[in-house]
Amino acid sequence: MNKVAIIMGSKSDLPVMQDAIDILKEFGIETEVDIVSAHRTPEYMMDFGKNAHKNGIDVIIAGAGGAAHLPGMVASITPLPVIGVPVKSSNSIDGWDSILSILQMPGGVPVATVALNGAKNAGILAAQILGVKDEKVQVKILDYMSQLKDKVQKMREDL
Amino acid sequence: MNKVAIIMGSKSDLPVMQDAIDILKEFGIETEVDIVSAHRTPEYMMDFGKNAHKNGIDVIIAGAGGAAHLPGMVASITPLPVIGVPVKSSNSIDGWDSILSILQMPGGVPVATVALNGAKNAGILAAQILGVKDEKVQVKILDYMSQLKDKVQKMREDL
Amino acid sequence: MNKVAIIMGSKSDLPVMQDAIDILKEFGIETEVDIVSAHRTPEYMMDFGKNAHKNGIDVIIAGAGGAAHLPGMVASITPLPVIGVPVKSSNSIDGWDSILSILQMPGGVPVATVALNGAKNAGILAAQILGVKDEKVQVKILDYMSQLKDKVQKMREDL
Amino acid sequence: MNKVAIIMGSKSDLPVMQDAIDILKEFGIETEVDIVSAHRTPEYMMDFGKNAHKNGIDVIIAGAGGAAHLPGMVASITPLPVIGVPVKSSNSIDGWDSILSILQMPGGVPVATVALNGAKNAGILAAQILGVKDEKVQVKILDYMSQLKDKVQKMREDL
Amino acid sequence: MNKVAIIMGSKSDLPVMQDAIDILKEFGIETEVDIVSAHRTPEYMMDFGKNAHKNGIDVIIAGAGGAAHLPGMVASITPLPVIGVPVKSSNSIDGWDSILSILQMPGGVPVATVALNGAKNAGILAAQILGVKDEKVQVKILDYMSQLKDKVQKMREDL
Amino acid sequence: MNKVAIIMGSKSDLPVMQDAIDILKEFGIETEVDIVSAHRTPEYMMDFGKNAHKNGIDVIIAGAGGAAHLPGMVASITPLPVIGVPVKSSNSIDGWDSILSILQMPGGVPVATVALNGAKNAGILAAQILGVKDEKVQVKILDYMSQLKDKVQKMREDL
Amino acid sequence: MNKVAIIMGSKSDLPVMQDAIDILKEFGIETEVDIVSAHRTPEYMMDFGKNAHKNGIDVIIAGAGGAAHLPGMVASITPLPVIGVPVKSSNSIDGWDSILSILQMPGGVPVATVALNGAKNAGILAAQILGVKDEKVQVKILDYMSQLKDKVQKMREDL
Amino acid sequence: MNKVAIIMGSKSDLPVMQDAIDILKEFGIETEVDIVSAHRTPEYMMDFGKNAHKNGIDVIIAGAGGAAHLPGMVASITPLPVIGVPVKSSNSIDGWDSILSILQMPGGVPVATVALNGAKNAGILAAQILGVKDEKVQVKILDYMSQLKDKVQKMREDL
Repeated sequence: MNKVAIIMGSKSDLPVMQDAIDILKEFGIETEVDIVSAHRTPEYMMDFGKNAHKNGIDVIIAGAGGAAHLPGMVASITPLPVIGVPVKSSNSIDGWDSILSILQMPGGVPVATVALNGAKNAGILAAQILGVKDEKVQVKILDYMSQLKDKVQKMREDL
Repeated sequence: MNKVAIIMGSKSDLPVMQDAIDILKEFGIETEVDIVSAHRTPEYMMDFGKNAHKNGIDVIIAGAGGAAHLPGMVASITPLPVIGVPVKSSNSIDGWDSILSILQMPGGVPVATVALNGAKNAGILAAQILGVKDEKVQVKILDYMSQLKDKVQKMREDL
Repeated sequence: MNKVAIIMGSKSDLPVMQDAIDILKEFGIETEVDIVSAHRTPEYMMDFGKNAHKNGIDVIIAGAGGAAHLPGMVASITPLPVIGVPVKSSNSIDGWDSILSILQMPGGVPVATVALNGAKNAGILAAQILGVKDEKVQVKILDYMSQLKDKVQKMREDL
Repeated sequence: MNKVAIIMGSKSDLPVMQDAIDILKEFGIETEVDIVSAHRTPEYMMDFGKNAHKNGIDVIIAGAGGAAHLPGMVASITPLPVIGVPVKSSNSIDGWDSILSILQMPGGVPVATVALNGAKNAGILAAQILGVKDEKVQVKILDYMSQLKDKVQKMREDL
Repeated sequence: MNKVAIIMGSKSDLPVMQDAIDILKEFGIETEVDIVSAHRTPEYMMDFGKNAHKNGIDVIIAGAGGAAHLPGMVASITPLPVIGVPVKSSNSIDGWDSILSILQMPGGVPVATVALNGAKNAGILAAQILGVKDEKVQVKILDYMSQLKDKVQKMREDL
Repeated sequence: MNKVAIIMGSKSDLPVMQDAIDILKEFGIETEVDIVSAHRTPEYMMDFGKNAHKNGIDVIIAGAGGAAHLPGMVASITPLPVIGVPVKSSNSIDGWDSILSILQMPGGVPVATVALNGAKNAGILAAQILGVKDEKVQVKILDYMSQLKDKVQKMREDL
Repeated sequence: MNKVAIIMGSKSDLPVMQDAIDILKEFGIETEVDIVSAHRTPEYMMDFGKNAHKNGIDVIIAGAGGAAHLPGMVASITPLPVIGVPVKSSNSIDGWDSILSILQMPGGVPVATVALNGAKNAGILAAQILGVKDEKVQVKILDYMSQLKDKVQKMREDL
Repeated sequence: MNKVAIIMGSKSDLPVMQDAIDILKEFGIETEVDIVSAHRTPEYMMDFGKNAHKNGIDVIIAGAGGAAHLPGMVASITPLPVIGVPVKSSNSIDGWDSILSILQMPGGVPVATVALNGAKNAGILAAQILGVKDEKVQVKILDYMSQLKDKVQKMREDL
């Protein structure tokens, strides 16, 4: 019913992107993981992007590093919300290139950008988006927020 | 039915944030506009944030400049998706402070950040999020994408 | 009599913030250490901030990394001086996000920002502030300055 | 009784630094304004710094631009809290030089740095520091915070 | 025979990109100018890129601003050399986003990047590339270099 | 017939620049490797640059770090296309100095800049340039692009 | 006897570089002004640099903007001290490129870099260097320092 | 006869500054090494600076990191040329603070800044300055330049 696609430009991005997969699993949300490279498989990327909303996908999470074009290019061909994860890959200048080439999209084509390597937050954001239509997911997010609070409370007691 | 709250730290952010209001109006989506200052009305911000999802709001767009805490703080108390608009306000260092203090949220509390002064894209992203639950909105976004294409086609002919 | 609260967003900030605790101990000033997370325990943060001056606290030192909202948010609800320590945490972009989101507060709500990871200086600054009302503390600071000079003198002899 | 010195490297910094003078006047706190140049009058700076606490000054606010050495140098010779205001002067690279050369003080010699051109906040911070010893000043700060809230409330009504 | 395509994301980039057209005209090289938007006409961009080398084009010059994906995306689908011109457009952060999202291409897909707003140099570089196969063009470049020298000589005499 | 010169300021740049040599070998293109230091052998650099096009060289790849003057200086004395590789050498500030001193050439003297440490892409770009005159090279580039696609396809199957 | 050459890449740098000429005139030091472009007149630059110390020049001041190679290249062929002035020219990215490509010279070839647009300081530094051999110049510098102090004293009285 | 003082803020800067001592020894120039801390021994710094030219010192090399005030403060009280070495110390933000707080001196008080950690170049620059008055030193510099060339020639042969 609820489905989030998690795509990335290379398998080398998987260690970072795994956090998105894990947190969505924790929320009980179905994920579909794929390697989609803007620069090496541009045509597959176009197919993927154009058909995502027809294939039952609700939200797309796209991670990429360096001159990171994947999130913005997918956003240009899908009506779905696209969440961009700037990855601090080996070819990135401290992450600035990844961030700016995902964040600074022109008017008309938004990408919902999260923090550098922030795949976990991308997953939570996808769940929040699904929570807009599915109250059960929203309740899980409220639970998750409650757990965050409890963990800090626990830290405080451990001081 | 579908409602987007557009909040900002000061009335001086309104010229930038108006783009979000306008594009949502264009999509026929109800908006609620408010001044909510993280640093001058922290308690009202807490009330606003905690109750937004109970007050029929689906998505929150928050714009702020400088050490921009409003989007992240509201995100910390609502289960709704929060879209952050870094505003290049008069007290901002070329926008870097606005961007980094909105984008670089810690794990657990995402803010969907758009480009510097990118309020228009914040509005479109809010519509895309609503489109996940409401197919009529998704159709409007597909129409909008089509118009973007036509405008470029028109430019090409005018060359 | 003189009391400084040292708060931080996570236990992982403690290795950096310990320097503030240690130097204040060296000056014989009472400290109160707590974990207060702007994003995970926003309500506790509000309570802490609103009541600090009623609970005998004179100065608040707040450390945080990434999109570091804790110092500025506490500053928005307390009449006490708040000293912000930008922490170069694991999710920080070389510290720039921590610095800018603490330093660039809007007019009306100051945070006294010290250097990246500069918790020791935060402790000394808190002592200097207490020295304004308590001459015995000011004398200790003059002694401390004298020791700094002696250490350099010692280095010179060791060359 | 309570006295704040406001010093700056050049008369050209006065338009920025005036905000500190004005807000302190608003709080009814005595100020002493002087031109003290680290690079053109280094000896006068040393005299000023060494004697400030003997001359009834409680807090020093120092504004400077470019390679801004005044706040840090004064901090090295006074036991008083020194508040540094990075000024975006004509010879400054977008303010980065002013900020970093004031903020990044070595361990042992803190400067309480505020935002770029943030002289108003420097004045409020000085008042907060004086409020630690003088409850009447603290009450004025609480009043000021209340006025900030009212102004936002007024903006909200004017929307 | 020799043909250079000059494409840009929007007509608003034309004032910058005109320099490339003018200098190529000066060298007597045929140009083809088009508006090709990566984000608004992604499918047309794909068509353009895939067919450029079949349509008699030798070199592609692509200008774009902000999250500038056009040069890199075209480079991903053409065997031709692609010269990228980072444009400091109105939505760009001092040009850093334009530069990094064009320059920092991953291994396998180069873009020959020139200076910010450096369309003139893009034109000269295209001519240099054509000079590799066409000696008459190389001779014109040697002439051009000679003229540059003469202009400086003229400046010297005018001192 | 087709020849690419690969020059660098120091032998310590060779580990980075080797990628250009390797990929050109893979394309069957002849290379000539040399150490040419702008700052230590300026006269040899001038000789090299002035004569390159007379010595059968078609394209020059120049790698350098820090205040990297080699690519731009060679470009000032040759009619050939010069590809600049910013090297993140030990004396470089995160690569920013290398990038800016290669990329930001004045109007009249272009350098085709690739990503930081992007020697592989410099090699591919040189091949693309040679492909403009030699269809056999262009076919090899099309093959190479096809291989890139296959590798991603393989990654996808391995997920 | 004492002679300082002031060179710059273009006549458009003269308004900035004039400050060096003026201050040296004030110190009674002979100057020689020339346009020497690293990229447009590389051979003349080589001649100029190699012969400067034979032509009675003691110190070279070189100003340039963008990818500013003039100071470093001249330094590579002269035994004289070279002072580099980063110019914030129209093609410069806020001056960062000018600064880094002048400052970050490799070991072996120093350039004495002054502040962005700091031609006045370049002139004073040249005078200080000449003061090492000529006590009369050193006395003039001591006088100049005294005048700086007096000007601040005057500002103080005017407050 | 010729004497260069090499001062630094802390013994921890010695590993970087040793390069200046070594190269000056290589040139046969007398050095005087001292620890002079702007922030911990400001009065000793003033004494040192005011008397340096009376104590037979010709050139001062000053190294410091973070908010590096030593070079600029010494420059404010001596008529001698001061060479500043930005040190990338443990408390420095990638060296940017060290560079900017040394380089961006206000008009009237120059510091001859060299590259980050560029103590070797500081030593060579000091020798070049002494070469202005002492031809024997200038000859040694010409020799040194010749050796640099030979080393590159050797590298070339070893390829």
